[in-house]
Amino acid sequence: MKIGIMGTGVVGETIATKLAASGHDVKMGARSATNEKAAAWVAKAGSRASQGTFAEAARHGELVFLCAKGEVAVEVARSAGQESLRGKILVDVSNPLDFSKGMPPTVFTKGDDSLAEQLQRELPETKVVKALNTVNAEVMVDPARLGSDHDMFVSGNDAAAKATVSNFLREQFGWKSVIDLGDVTTARGTEHYLPLWLRLMFALKTADFNLKIVKK
Amino acid sequence: MKIGIMGTGVVGETIATKLAASGHDVKMGARSATNEKAAAWVAKAGSRASQGTFAEAARHGELVFLCAKGEVAVEVARSAGQESLRGKILVDVSNPLDFSKGMPPTVFTKGDDSLAEQLQRELPETKVVKALNTVNAEVMVDPARLGSDHDMFVSGNDAAAKATVSNFLREQFGWKSVIDLGDVTTARGTEHYLPLWLRLMFALKTADFNLKIVKK
Repeated sequence: MKIGIMGTGVVGETIATKLAASGHDVKMGARSATNEKAAAWVAKAGSRASQGTFAEAARHGELVFLCAKGEVAVEVARSAGQESLRGKILVDVSNPLDFSKGMPPTVFTKGDDSLAEQLQRELPETKVVKALNTVNAEVMVDPARLGSDHDMFVSGNDAAAKATVSNFLREQFGWKSVIDLGDVTTARGTEHYLPLWLRLMFALKTADFNLKIVKK
Repeated sequence: MKIGIMGTGVVGETIATKLAASGHDVKMGARSATNEKAAAWVAKAGSRASQGTFAEAARHGELVFLCAKGEVAVEVARSAGQESLRGKILVDVSNPLDFSKGMPPTVFTKGDDSLAEQLQRELPETKVVKALNTVNAEVMVDPARLGSDHDMFVSGNDAAAKATVSNFLREQFGWKSVIDLGDVTTARGTEHYLPLWLRLMFALKTADFNLKIVKK
């Protein structure tokens, strides 16, 4: 499958590497078509790996992952362009974290908004699905490292797109439980969970953890 | 043990009822010493139950629970007064939820603050411990209704106070796992979890759930 990855950081590289290793045709996008981190990734990721601009990665992908830092996520989507992403599913993995005042970062979206909603407004003809933003990159692509009994969440306005992403997460990464939280506004929930995730990381002294929802 | 409960809502009444039934000497505080909801609770909660003002409940308690609505939590603490709570542990169960724009509510504290911190600033000689705010009232006092394997969190600046509260939660309510997240600023984490809790409640169609942290 043709996959577009927008972003060259740890999250983008981890997802790109996993999918390239599974035989997918992955293009990593950056601001520049000759981005050095993307070039280094292409050099080691196999013959079906390639690089390009954000717009080229977006056009390439049948499924596109937005893995940019939260502070530039909307700008990256704008740079890719509505045309490149029209009708496609955009998996938004970004988190609205402001590191400008040091650690731990704060969430910069207000309570009545989320990055996923900002992206959906920027790309009205794209199906934005929020996913994977509640775990560390290694857990995203290998949930089995924590055992099988923990949960991933998806948010988005298009039910079919959420089902497609949920199946993709199950089949490609091995997620056993994907909970559909509802429309794109429910991304406010997972994005605002990050402050707790960060405190848990410090308290547990590991980023290798996730949530399991226990109910009656 | 003498317990002060500030607040007459579902959370205050549920905690007060549980502790009165266990033989504790519980005083429920409200704005008025003759609050009707507190009077109705006293009438059914047994001979050791009593009511009073916020200040009277605070003075009464060896341990005091703040169960007011988030929007008035600081005002309630101020009404109780520094003197009533000097040197005591105040368990802050409140959540900074703004219902003024309808459901679901939004979190009104900013990313660099929390209600627990606001209370600690208001009551510098009181040991504020944030706890119980991540679950429904019924789960707070009866975690076994969900099974034994899920987590409660505490935040606060005083390690001994957190240990006292953690033991109290274990012994009085049956919490098996209480995770110490760190100082009072870590309450930003559990307070900002509420938007996810609310979406989970809608998605799962029940408030009878909680988190279990799964780690490697």
